[in-house]
Amino acid sequence: MAGQLSIAWILSPMVIGLIGLALAFFFYGNVKRQPIGGTETMNRIAQYIREGAMAFLTREYKVLAIYTAVVFVTLGFTLGWLAANAFVLGAFLSLLAGFCGMQAATLANVRTAEAARRGSKPNALLIALDGGAVMGLAVAGLGLVGLTAVYYSLRNNPHVMNTTLHAFAVGASSIALFARIGGGIYTKAADVGADIAGKVIEGIPEDDPRNPGVVADNVGDNVGDVAGMGADIYESMVAAIVSAVAISLTTADSVHLKSLAPGLSEIGERTLGGALPLILSGVGLAISILGIFLARVLRGSKPASVLRNCLIIPPIALTAVSAILMPLLGATQAVTICLAAGAIGGAAIGLVTEYYTAHKPIRRVADSSRTGAATNIIQGLAVGKESVIVPMLILCAVAWLSNAQLGLYGVAIAAVGMLAGTAIVMTVDAYGPISDNAGGISEMSGLGKEVRDITDELDSVGNTTAAIGKGFAIGSATLTVVALFSAYSMEITHARGPNGIPFHLELTDATVLIGVLLGAILPFWVSASTMLAVGHAAQKIVIEIARQFKEIPGLLEGTADPEPAHIVDIATKAALIEMIQPGLVAILAPTLTGFILGPTALAGMLAGSLAVGSTLSLFMANSGGAWDNAKKHIEKGDLDGHIKGGDAHKAAVVGDTVGDPFKDTSGPGVAILIKVMSVVSLLIAPLIANR
Amino acid sequence: MAGQLSIAWILSPMVIGLIGLALAFFFYGNVKRQPIGGTETMNRIAQYIREGAMAFLTREYKVLAIYTAVVFVTLGFTLGWLAANAFVLGAFLSLLAGFCGMQAATLANVRTAEAARRGSKPNALLIALDGGAVMGLAVAGLGLVGLTAVYYSLRNNPHVMNTTLHAFAVGASSIALFARIGGGIYTKAADVGADIAGKVIEGIPEDDPRNPGVVADNVGDNVGDVAGMGADIYESMVAAIVSAVAISLTTADSVHLKSLAPGLSEIGERTLGGALPLILSGVGLAISILGIFLARVLRGSKPASVLRNCLIIPPIALTAVSAILMPLLGATQAVTICLAAGAIGGAAIGLVTEYYTAHKPIRRVADSSRTGAATNIIQGLAVGKESVIVPMLILCAVAWLSNAQLGLYGVAIAAVGMLAGTAIVMTVDAYGPISDNAGGISEMSGLGKEVRDITDELDSVGNTTAAIGKGFAIGSATLTVVALFSAYSMEITHARGPNGIPFHLELTDATVLIGVLLGAILPFWVSASTMLAVGHAAQKIVIEIARQFKEIPGLLEGTADPEPAHIVDIATKAALIEMIQPGLVAILAPTLTGFILGPTALAGMLAGSLAVGSTLSLFMANSGGAWDNAKKHIEKGDLDGHIKGGDAHKAAVVGDTVGDPFKDTSGPGVAILIKVMSVVSLLIAPLIANR
Repeated sequence: MAGQLSIAWILSPMVIGLIGLALAFFFYGNVKRQPIGGTETMNRIAQYIREGAMAFLTREYKVLAIYTAVVFVTLGFTLGWLAANAFVLGAFLSLLAGFCGMQAATLANVRTAEAARRGSKPNALLIALDGGAVMGLAVAGLGLVGLTAVYYSLRNNPHVMNTTLHAFAVGASSIALFARIGGGIYTKAADVGADIAGKVIEGIPEDDPRNPGVVADNVGDNVGDVAGMGADIYESMVAAIVSAVAISLTTADSVHLKSLAPGLSEIGERTLGGALPLILSGVGLAISILGIFLARVLRGSKPASVLRNCLIIPPIALTAVSAILMPLLGATQAVTICLAAGAIGGAAIGLVTEYYTAHKPIRRVADSSRTGAATNIIQGLAVGKESVIVPMLILCAVAWLSNAQLGLYGVAIAAVGMLAGTAIVMTVDAYGPISDNAGGISEMSGLGKEVRDITDELDSVGNTTAAIGKGFAIGSATLTVVALFSAYSMEITHARGPNGIPFHLELTDATVLIGVLLGAILPFWVSASTMLAVGHAAQKIVIEIARQFKEIPGLLEGTADPEPAHIVDIATKAALIEMIQPGLVAILAPTLTGFILGPTALAGMLAGSLAVGSTLSLFMANSGGAWDNAKKHIEKGDLDGHIKGGDAHKAAVVGDTVGDPFKDTSGPGVAILIKVMSVVSLLIAPLIANR
Repeated sequence: MAGQLSIAWILSPMVIGLIGLALAFFFYGNVKRQPIGGTETMNRIAQYIREGAMAFLTREYKVLAIYTAVVFVTLGFTLGWLAANAFVLGAFLSLLAGFCGMQAATLANVRTAEAARRGSKPNALLIALDGGAVMGLAVAGLGLVGLTAVYYSLRNNPHVMNTTLHAFAVGASSIALFARIGGGIYTKAADVGADIAGKVIEGIPEDDPRNPGVVADNVGDNVGDVAGMGADIYESMVAAIVSAVAISLTTADSVHLKSLAPGLSEIGERTLGGALPLILSGVGLAISILGIFLARVLRGSKPASVLRNCLIIPPIALTAVSAILMPLLGATQAVTICLAAGAIGGAAIGLVTEYYTAHKPIRRVADSSRTGAATNIIQGLAVGKESVIVPMLILCAVAWLSNAQLGLYGVAIAAVGMLAGTAIVMTVDAYGPISDNAGGISEMSGLGKEVRDITDELDSVGNTTAAIGKGFAIGSATLTVVALFSAYSMEITHARGPNGIPFHLELTDATVLIGVLLGAILPFWVSASTMLAVGHAAQKIVIEIARQFKEIPGLLEGTADPEPAHIVDIATKAALIEMIQPGLVAILAPTLTGFILGPTALAGMLAGSLAVGSTLSLFMANSGGAWDNAKKHIEKGDLDGHIKGGDAHKAAVVGDTVGDPFKDTSGPGVAILIKVMSVVSLLIAPLIANR
């Protein structure tokens, strides 16, 4: 094995990926076999949601097809057609994963409601989990199969392979960008629009079947939290792997890489360094699959503990397996330390996020609602800002530890470790909107309190895991960006600049500093435009809902049906139009800076946007989560002397509404921004360095 | 003159500084000579405000004395007693300027009200301006005199001079930090507390004499906008000058400096490079003095245009004078270009800030209040985020242009240019709280509508100039930090690291990247803790006001007097306690990072906090300004179909309340944070580099 890694090892991630995909099919079939809704209303509403979700996806994919075609041609003429094809592959697999996941989720929601209607909580949990597992396995499986295919077929030409992998990652990133931002705008426009129109204007409760916006709200959960989140996590996993491969190929001095496998030649070491991220991600997927089966076995216990274990056990298992594998591969255990730092750090960030969005801080936010909306907002903003501190410190510790072990390659391996559990994290994430939808369907169909009690419990667990998932997604994005940034700066510093002088990315260089300031602008720009986008789109929805209540006789009295398709249509159009500006900013800013101001300014820009983007997105996601749960805290009657509908609750609803675009649109949008910028920079690095 | 700069030039800034101080005395006398309030109530209230303001200052100074003593001893044992004394001098002059300014402001407020009562708008404007001019001239005059004294006395020992100037700047920074944060917490706690208690709990209007919190609110205007702002601007001016001197002394290759005065020897060039920032600041002060006299001459015209001209003409005059001076000093006109870029850039940032806090954007915020508080908040946050873009681009352009002219020295000169108008900017800034106080005194004393009309006009102009001043302060802080950062990195890269290897601040170094992430945390930390501090302190004030209304018979009916001194006392104590945590973070974070993780991590930390701090503070300051003016827009009846007290207005009041700590506590607090961190780093650079 020394010197040349056996083909079996290199292909192992593909094999595991294919097994994952086969299991996704199995789970999909499992979900489909379950009984559909027992009442006509349930099926009608489920049908509305499914049609709305798939209609959005279809139209979004049309827009993305145009974008993909433009980039395909551009790449073909600049970096060659191999890169252009890899870009399309990376994008296509992301779309495919999103499509499969949405198919499963929109079948699973009504079936989960039906299981709850029949009184079986374990069955309901199982169906929701199986539905989520389709997305989780599709995301991880397709990503691994695609990357391994590129790696394997080009393994004898590392330089070409490197560029091709970058292009693959840009494909993944682009789709993630638009899916996340478009989906985020859709889901929150529908949510805010339906809430404002329903609660404020017409005075009817949440999820009331008379409200024409409720279906769009449920569609939005799928569009945002299944398709959007899936594309986001898929791209993080791809980017982490690609950055690790890139660093192992370009580390000129190989100071740190040399200690990776002291027994091997330099070539053998580089080969091992390039293959390890894939092999370890394959191991992560295998462990995730076992985790998903474990959850099935445990389905009789408390849903909260089932899902919690799904997030905590895999990092530990991954560490154990790596410790056994490394000697077999001839690699040092330093790899295991980096991997463990990333995996355990990711779980720790998830738990901190849970603390800030579920424990003492949200009681503080709820408490501050006693004196009105202003104090609720101030407290929520402060909690969000505070919540930045510990996760960022964890990331610093992970980066410091892994850098001490294996240099920047170690940091990339830590990112791989953090994302090795992609399949199970995504499963648990996609479980959220399914159980949320199940609750919505039950409410709209007028099912009884016992049914709601089951769906409410599943849903509330889903809310917590969603918050954990968001913190994890942003944390892993930040670490991935650090790894990508390192890969970019290595490409640049190893290139010859104009006049043959190598580039230096020194902070004493004013160009770098100007880049830092320019980069600092972008997260605020994208954040402003996505928040405004939600506002615009929500306003259109409010107007349409008001129109329906005015023009459809008997709607308010419950004797006539609303026209949800109109709302779905408005939300779809608005989301697709509004996602263009922030999307273009993310792609054009690094491209223009790189070509006009040069690679050093671009390096500064990446550092500036990393600093601002990572903190700003954590702040927004966690403020939003805290407001949301503070409102629920009051609704549950946990704030002494205050009830749902009272003044404190009204104040908390204001916070919740502000938090909606914070946590589900702007926050994730900014996180994806910094990933896209780094991936694009990595791809164009050879072009701007050798001009 | 070639080779050796004549003593006359070097001492010129001191002479102009002394003239400025003499004029400050003259204006102080002028204010004092004006008739005091014509009614007993006016004088009583003015007395309350004055006593409250001076009491706060006295107690704050006691706390600062302890801090100063600790740092004095620490510096004495590490960097020597000369540096320790310079630190105390820098701090003392800041405190002295604040004391003089507050004396003048708290005399001018009631006299301005009296002039308005007698029906003379020009006189009222004049008194308010004269009162402001005392602060403006004290800040610039004391700063210049102090710096020139240090520079002159140590000019033959550049190395010692450099460290001594850094220590002077740290003294200035420390006071600015605590005065700004403590003052910011005080003013907004009193404002929010009085508003919530008055409007929400007791249902009485703003500035109502029955509300025991109103006096504290008026005290807060002085404490925050006179003393706090003054210390802030003083430290920016000092830091800009010190960074320019430091760069001219440490530029080893002198690549760019060489083109500063092609006819001079290297020593002559360095001397000129070190003296220029002082000379140019002296010129700026002279122009500001002329500007203040011009405003006196023009006092009959519209107040808005008088103040606007005060901010626009000086940069142009400065450019013209510099163009004449440079040939006389043997320096290239590149200096003039850098200076002009900074001065005009600063004015441009002020105007952009005005746009975002007074024009179309605030109409959007007002408009969004129609659908409630949540949409008002979302829109205000989005406006603030958007408002980051153009000022940051202006700063990038200024930095790019000045760097192209004279390298990093040019960037420092641009910062000097931006702050050359310190005296007049501060005059206009301090005018704001004086006219605001005059309005408050008129209202509380029950003066007629004609009087209120005059004070309202003066006050509303003050609000706009305050917004401009805030944008300017943050913009100049950012550019100053870039200059300070450059000075720091030069100190570090010219030092020998451990093992004799020089330090490199490369972005490919994981330590630098970790520093960037650590630095990104701090602005969020300080922002969270200052917002919470306002919340805590406001809550205490609300409780005390409620107590007074309950326990003082006849207070609500207006037959008994409130006890404002209690509120003043609570606000003072709360502000002094709450300022400690953010203050320590600002000072300890760079110190600990520098000593534990080393100078490269500290460089990354400064870059990360620069990126996040500059944008976050602009965002918060401008969101706050937009909410404030959106509320006023509705109050003036400019939002169709909505009146004061209506639903849209109530929603706008929520935004205004959230905006209070945003714009006057957290925003400026974060801006000062990044300045303090850079100055502290510059001071400790020799200690951490040569360990």
